[in-house]
Amino acid sequence: MAKELKDLTKRADNYSQWYNDLVMKADLAETSPVRGCMIIKPYGYAIWEKMQAALDAMFKATGVQNAYFPLLIPKSFFAKEAEHVAGFAKESAVVTHYRLKATEDGKGITVDPEAKLEEELIIRPTSETMIWNTYKNWIKSYRDLPILCNQWCNVMRWEMRTRPFLRTSEFLWQEGHTAHATSEEAQEEAKKMLGVYADFAENWMAVPVVQGVKSETERFAGALDTYTIEAMMQDGKALQSGTSHFLGQNFAKSFDVTFLNKENKPEYVWATSWGVSTRLMGALIMVHSDDNGLVLPPKLAPIQVVIIPISKNAEQLEAISAKINPLMEELTKMGISVKYDDSDNKRPGFKFADYELKGVPVRLVMGARDLENGTVEVMRRDTLEKEILPFEGVANHVQHLLVDIQKTIFEKARQYRDNHIYECDNYEEFKERIKDGGFFLCHWDGTTETEAKIKEDTQATIRCVPFGYEQTEGVDMVSGKPAKCRVIIARSY
Amino acid sequence: MAKELKDLTKRADNYSQWYNDLVMKADLAETSPVRGCMIIKPYGYAIWEKMQAALDAMFKATGVQNAYFPLLIPKSFFAKEAEHVAGFAKESAVVTHYRLKATEDGKGITVDPEAKLEEELIIRPTSETMIWNTYKNWIKSYRDLPILCNQWCNVMRWEMRTRPFLRTSEFLWQEGHTAHATSEEAQEEAKKMLGVYADFAENWMAVPVVQGVKSETERFAGALDTYTIEAMMQDGKALQSGTSHFLGQNFAKSFDVTFLNKENKPEYVWATSWGVSTRLMGALIMVHSDDNGLVLPPKLAPIQVVIIPISKNAEQLEAISAKINPLMEELTKMGISVKYDDSDNKRPGFKFADYELKGVPVRLVMGARDLENGTVEVMRRDTLEKEILPFEGVANHVQHLLVDIQKTIFEKARQYRDNHIYECDNYEEFKERIKDGGFFLCHWDGTTETEAKIKEDTQATIRCVPFGYEQTEGVDMVSGKPAKCRVIIARSY
Repeated sequence: MAKELKDLTKRADNYSQWYNDLVMKADLAETSPVRGCMIIKPYGYAIWEKMQAALDAMFKATGVQNAYFPLLIPKSFFAKEAEHVAGFAKESAVVTHYRLKATEDGKGITVDPEAKLEEELIIRPTSETMIWNTYKNWIKSYRDLPILCNQWCNVMRWEMRTRPFLRTSEFLWQEGHTAHATSEEAQEEAKKMLGVYADFAENWMAVPVVQGVKSETERFAGALDTYTIEAMMQDGKALQSGTSHFLGQNFAKSFDVTFLNKENKPEYVWATSWGVSTRLMGALIMVHSDDNGLVLPPKLAPIQVVIIPISKNAEQLEAISAKINPLMEELTKMGISVKYDDSDNKRPGFKFADYELKGVPVRLVMGARDLENGTVEVMRRDTLEKEILPFEGVANHVQHLLVDIQKTIFEKARQYRDNHIYECDNYEEFKERIKDGGFFLCHWDGTTETEAKIKEDTQATIRCVPFGYEQTEGVDMVSGKPAKCRVIIARSY
Repeated sequence: MAKELKDLTKRADNYSQWYNDLVMKADLAETSPVRGCMIIKPYGYAIWEKMQAALDAMFKATGVQNAYFPLLIPKSFFAKEAEHVAGFAKESAVVTHYRLKATEDGKGITVDPEAKLEEELIIRPTSETMIWNTYKNWIKSYRDLPILCNQWCNVMRWEMRTRPFLRTSEFLWQEGHTAHATSEEAQEEAKKMLGVYADFAENWMAVPVVQGVKSETERFAGALDTYTIEAMMQDGKALQSGTSHFLGQNFAKSFDVTFLNKENKPEYVWATSWGVSTRLMGALIMVHSDDNGLVLPPKLAPIQVVIIPISKNAEQLEAISAKINPLMEELTKMGISVKYDDSDNKRPGFKFADYELKGVPVRLVMGARDLENGTVEVMRRDTLEKEILPFEGVANHVQHLLVDIQKTIFEKARQYRDNHIYECDNYEEFKERIKDGGFFLCHWDGTTETEAKIKEDTQATIRCVPFGYEQTEGVDMVSGKPAKCRVIIARSY
C-alpha cells in the first residue's frame, strides 16, 4: 500500500484532519509561505479548470460576457457604500508604497519611504465598488441596459483562521455584476444565476444543494437579498457553495449611476452580483471522498480512466500495449480522458492506491491472463467494485459506467442529505441533536435576537429560508413567538 | 457615418493617437481610477480569451500543466536572487498593512496602524522567487523532473508611463516555469516555448515575428539567455511580443533546489521561464488595423461574421429574417461565430461603420433587391471589397473567405515587415534612416558601450541576434571594431 494512502486519517477518527490530509496527499493544494494563501497544485488546478469551463459556458448561455477590472481599489471607494466598509474593507491587504530600494549595506532591500502613495490602495476583496464606479461611464440610457458582466480573478480577504479551499486569504473566483432598468429584472437575474449555480452543483459536481434566501444577518454587505445554495458535507455540516445578491439601487446611489428611462427621466440603476469560488473545491472533495481518497465525479475528473498493465517481462508488456493502444484511441475519440500508466518505476499496487487516492473514476487492469482470455478488469472508484469483462466492447462499457458513476454518487449524496434533514420544534432536542450535524427545519420568529441566541448556544446559524419547501406557520422553538416559516439551521464551514 | 469612427485619428496624422483612440472607440479597454491600471472591456476581453484558449492548448500539447501560486511574495524572497532585486523588486506595489478601520468621526476609513505586517509583501511582478521556493519541496530526485508548470494570472509593475495593453501597471499574462535535470534540456525547453509563441503569433494573430536572442543588456533579470519574438508595427517600430528565458541554475542556487541524479549525487536544478501578456493585444491591434478601425484575424475575432438586414418595413424584415435564420444555423454548424443585427434603434450606415470599427472580418447585407434576386452582399473587412453573390452556397463562400482573410492579412504584414528590414553598414546613414522606422541589420562588436551609444544617439535598441539569418563577420558601424554577427536594431514600444 502506498505510503500516502496509509497515512490518510480516517473520516470517523477526525473528519477535519481527513480533509486536510486528503488535500495535501492527493496533490490538490499546499500551504505557502504567505499567511493564509495556498498554492493550487496542477492536479487540483486541473479540476478547477474543468469547473471554470463548465460554469463559463453556462454564464455565456445566459448572455453574460467576461471583462477585467483592476486588482487595486482606492480606499475612498469603500467609504462610499456604508455597509460595505464594515463588511469588506476591514480585513484587507493595504498597498501603501510603490517602490523598494537597497538597504544601506547593499545586502538587503527595504521599502522606499519616499514612495508613499497619496491614497492607499486595497487589494479587492470583491469588486462592486470598482465596477459601479465604471458602470457610471457605461450607462446613459435604458438602451445601455442590461449590462451582464463577469470576471474570473483573484480576491483577498485577510482571514484569521484559514483552511485550504474552504477559507483562504487569497482565493480564485468569478464575480458577476449586472445592471438593470427595473427592480423586477434585477431580482429575476439574481434568481436565475442562483439556478445556474444549483444546476452546476448538481449536474457537474454531483453535489445536491438546497436553494434559499439568507436572513438579514447573513446577507452580503450592501445587498437587499442574498440567495444561496447550501450543500451538506459528510459530517452533516453546511457549506455555503455560491451566493447571488439582489443589490437594489444601493451601489447605483453610492456611485451616482443613473439612466434615462423611456420617458427620458433619470432613474437609479438596479444591480445584482453573484459569485462562486475555489471554495467549491472544498465541497467537491468533502461530499464524495472516502477513507481511500478522493472520489471525483467523472464530468470534472482530469483523468477519467486509468489503464494499468501488469506484466512479468518486456514481451508481455509489449503485447498488452498492443491491445491497449487502439482502446486508448477509441476512448479518446469518445471524448474520454484516459491515461495509460506503463511506468516501470512503480509497482502496480502503488499505482492502484495512488489512482484511488486521486479519485480517478474508472481503472482498467490488464495482465497476462487477461491477454490469454481476451478480458480486462474494470474497477469503479466510487464503490470499488471490480468485474472481469470481455475486452471486446469495453470502451462502450466504460462510457456507460462513467455516466452511471456520475449519477450514483449524486444519488448517494442526495440520500445522505435527505436522511439528515429534520423538522424540529423543540429547542432542547435541537441543542442535543445538532451536535451530530444535519440540517434542521425549524420555525423562526424572524428576529435577530433568536438567531443570535441559537448561534451562541450551539454555534449553528440560519443557513436560509429554503425554496421549494411547503411552508406552514408555527411557533419559534426558542422564543415561543409566532413564526411565519421554517428556516434551515445548521453548523457550517 | 458613426460619430466614433469620424473621430478616429488617422494613422498618418498621429500613429500613437490613432492607437489610443482605437483602443477606446472599439470598446477594447479604458483607463481606470487606479494609476496605470486598465479596465479590459467585454469586447477586448473576448479577444484575449480566444488568445488564451489557443495558447493554453498549445502549451498543454507540449506537456505543460497549469497551477496557481500566491499573488503576494515576501519581500525577503527578492533579496535572494541578486539581479532580480534590481530588475523587478524596485518598482513594485508593497502591502504593509492588513486592516482598515473607521476614522474617529465615523465618516471615513483609515489604515489601522496596529495591523502592520511583520514583513512587507510585494504584489508579484513575476513569480520565479515564489515558484522556486515551492519547487524546493517538489523536487527530490531526477524522477521528479522535468516539472512543466504554467500559471495564468495578473502581475504588477509600477510603471511610470503607461499605455493601454502595451505597458500597464497591472497586466494579465501567463508565466511558465520549468525545472530540468540538465542544462541541455532546459535550453531546449526555452527554445521550444519560443517556437510555440512564434507559431501562435504567426498562425493565430497573423503577425509575422523575428525570433532571436537578446543581448546581455536586454536580458531578463536572472537569466543566462533571453529568447524573444519581435514584431514590426505599422510605424516600423518593434514590439517585443513574448520572451523565453534560460535561467541556468541561478534560481535553484538562490532557493537551494537540488535533486539526486541517477548516480544518487545532488545537483542543482536547471530552469526556464517564459511569458506572454495582454501586450499581445497591442501587437494585434497595431499590425493589422487601419483608419476605419480594427482589422481582426478571423481566428481571434469574437464575431467572425455579421449579417445586417436593410428593410423598409416589418414585412420585408420578416422575409429577410426567414432567409437569414437557416444561414445562421449553417454558419454556426461550421463553427463560425455569427451575429444577426436586426436591431431597429440604429440605422444601417451606423451599423456598417460600427462593425468596421470593431474589425468584424466579414459582413453580409441583405436588402429588398437581394431578396428579389436571390443574392446577398458580402464585404471583407481587410480590403473593404464588396461583391454581390448568389445567396445559395454563401455559407461555403464565407468559410473560404475567412481562411483567405487570415492568410491575406498575414501576407500583407509580412510584406510590410520584409520591406522594412534593411542591412546597414554606415552609422550616419543609420541615424538618418532609423527616424522612419524599420528593423536594421547591423554588425555589432558585442560591447555594451556600442549598444549604449546607439540608444543615446537614436533611442533605438538591439532587439535581438536573429535566428535563421545567414550571418557573416564584419565591422561594427559605430566602433569600427570587428563584429561576429549582425543584430536587429530598432526603436521599440
